[in-house]
Amino acid sequence: MPQTSTQVILVNRPTGLPTSSDFEIRSQPVPEPAAGELVVANLYISLDPAMRGWMRDARSYVPPVGLGEVMRAGAVGRVLASRDPNFAEGDHVSGLLGVQSIACVPGKGLRKVDPKLAPLSAYLGVLGMPAMTAYFGLLEVGALAADDTVLVSGAAGAVGSMVGQIAKLKGARAVGLAGGPEKCQHLVNELGFDAAIDYKHDDVKAKIKATCPDRVNVYFDNVGGELLNIALTQLAMRARVVICGAISQYNHLEKIEGPSNYMSLLVSRARMEGFVVFDYAKRYDEASQQLGAWLSAGKLSYRETVIEGLDNFADSFAKLFTGDKLGKLVLKVG
Amino acid sequence: MPQTSTQVILVNRPTGLPTSSDFEIRSQPVPEPAAGELVVANLYISLDPAMRGWMRDARSYVPPVGLGEVMRAGAVGRVLASRDPNFAEGDHVSGLLGVQSIACVPGKGLRKVDPKLAPLSAYLGVLGMPAMTAYFGLLEVGALAADDTVLVSGAAGAVGSMVGQIAKLKGARAVGLAGGPEKCQHLVNELGFDAAIDYKHDDVKAKIKATCPDRVNVYFDNVGGELLNIALTQLAMRARVVICGAISQYNHLEKIEGPSNYMSLLVSRARMEGFVVFDYAKRYDEASQQLGAWLSAGKLSYRETVIEGLDNFADSFAKLFTGDKLGKLVLKVG
Repeated sequence: MPQTSTQVILVNRPTGLPTSSDFEIRSQPVPEPAAGELVVANLYISLDPAMRGWMRDARSYVPPVGLGEVMRAGAVGRVLASRDPNFAEGDHVSGLLGVQSIACVPGKGLRKVDPKLAPLSAYLGVLGMPAMTAYFGLLEVGALAADDTVLVSGAAGAVGSMVGQIAKLKGARAVGLAGGPEKCQHLVNELGFDAAIDYKHDDVKAKIKATCPDRVNVYFDNVGGELLNIALTQLAMRARVVICGAISQYNHLEKIEGPSNYMSLLVSRARMEGFVVFDYAKRYDEASQQLGAWLSAGKLSYRETVIEGLDNFADSFAKLFTGDKLGKLVLKVG
Repeated sequence: MPQTSTQVILVNRPTGLPTSSDFEIRSQPVPEPAAGELVVANLYISLDPAMRGWMRDARSYVPPVGLGEVMRAGAVGRVLASRDPNFAEGDHVSGLLGVQSIACVPGKGLRKVDPKLAPLSAYLGVLGMPAMTAYFGLLEVGALAADDTVLVSGAAGAVGSMVGQIAKLKGARAVGLAGGPEKCQHLVNELGFDAAIDYKHDDVKAKIKATCPDRVNVYFDNVGGELLNIALTQLAMRARVVICGAISQYNHLEKIEGPSNYMSLLVSRARMEGFVVFDYAKRYDEASQQLGAWLSAGKLSYRETVIEGLDNFADSFAKLFTGDKLGKLVLKVG
């Protein structure tokens, strides 16, 4: 049993893109677990755009991470000690274990994962929260129908790549927005999207018109900003705009850019709806089973970008916003 | 039977607030009605914010009024001649009869109205499209529940005043946003709103917090702009934002202001949905019966601002945007 945990502590509220000066690396003694608690050795830590919001001191769906606290993050790890009867030493678990090498946390809220079914890091992506987010966001909030055309932004990311694949598995058309020809080729050639739009180089509006001739029934938005604004003009009647994230806006110093074309919601009798995957916690098992079955059957592809070392947290996290990665971004504990 | 119709013709696409130079008054011979058509003497013409959109050459839920065409408007009138077996000379009808003294139009799309049940002008307001808009927007799109708090902008207008009253009749709380103390007193003292907020003089955010302590379940938006943006920050969980109009933005020369706080939809798991009352045409009778019953029982109050003379169309229409009127704005044919 290690005596100390290496922890990434939030010490400043970032302005703009977070940098290493917003965090400190500390060694802390690992406490004795109280009743109901586990000690977990983290193996892989999930880097997600939502974490940028958790660094901000504003009303949101969860309280912000406090200054001086361990940065909140999903992770997978191995149980070193357990005082929760639902978990035993040697089990593998996933949950909000934080950006640290050793976590001492309540067992409640953790889920057991099986390293024989899939590599452990997969439980942060194709079988984890990004996949759950895509699953419930597309099927429940987006109310997907088989003859729909789905347009998704951030399509080469952990959530977006699942949105497109689930849309295809359900019989719908999928068109992805991503940055650069490499990602666009990945969407079409490896993930099976019907088309991809390179927002850095293409005329986005013209390309949506060309690839979505019956307009867009579900726009799954991870990005916000100008892509959301353009997509609003291309909605089909009674379209659903799923507000999952706004990665283009999270690091804005001034107020974020609102969608000036929102009155298209009236013209198209469409709705724009926000959601938080945590609300579907009671149905995670249902989604896990479906996703696991698809993965076992070879129907889901995924990519990971894995960076090693807690020291590299801030620089790695920035790649979510610069786009300098493909698929799920994971920090491997060194 | 009059030989000529005085018609208000759209001759320019207005930039900003429409003025009399955007219209011409013409006398045209009244044609012989074809099979299925009626000749109607218009008595009252409805002035509605949506008409500003119809003057614009852009994709919308109806085609724009063409240059050189009679300006589109709802109206009530008396049938002078009918070649539609559903209507007879002397009947009173409402429908899209246009800004003109005599209309020759298909009977299809017109509705008979009864001058014994209510003054004819009421069929343009408390029993007309504004009331239908409030009824279906609030109950269907807004999915009103009895314990909801409803916030409505443009609350002293034809639609907003009905939204508040219908909310109260359904057991909900109603808070209105209006411009100036006179309108605010009218909302509370005559229409029975629980509270009114004077957006011209009050601290709107603080006043919403004070008057909606459990936050806002339904925000019925007629106004757009900064009021929408503030309201988004005050939504209750699973709130519905009903996009009915954006009167603050219709005359903007540059692109309209989008709601920069739209990510509150995610924080509150809320939806923002646009609608067009015409989609509910098959259910107009249901709404008419309910509204008529409430009116007969003395449960609905309304005000009208009536201006006489087709010559005054442009100046009268501008009052919708300057706020210089109370309740339903009507043009009486001279």
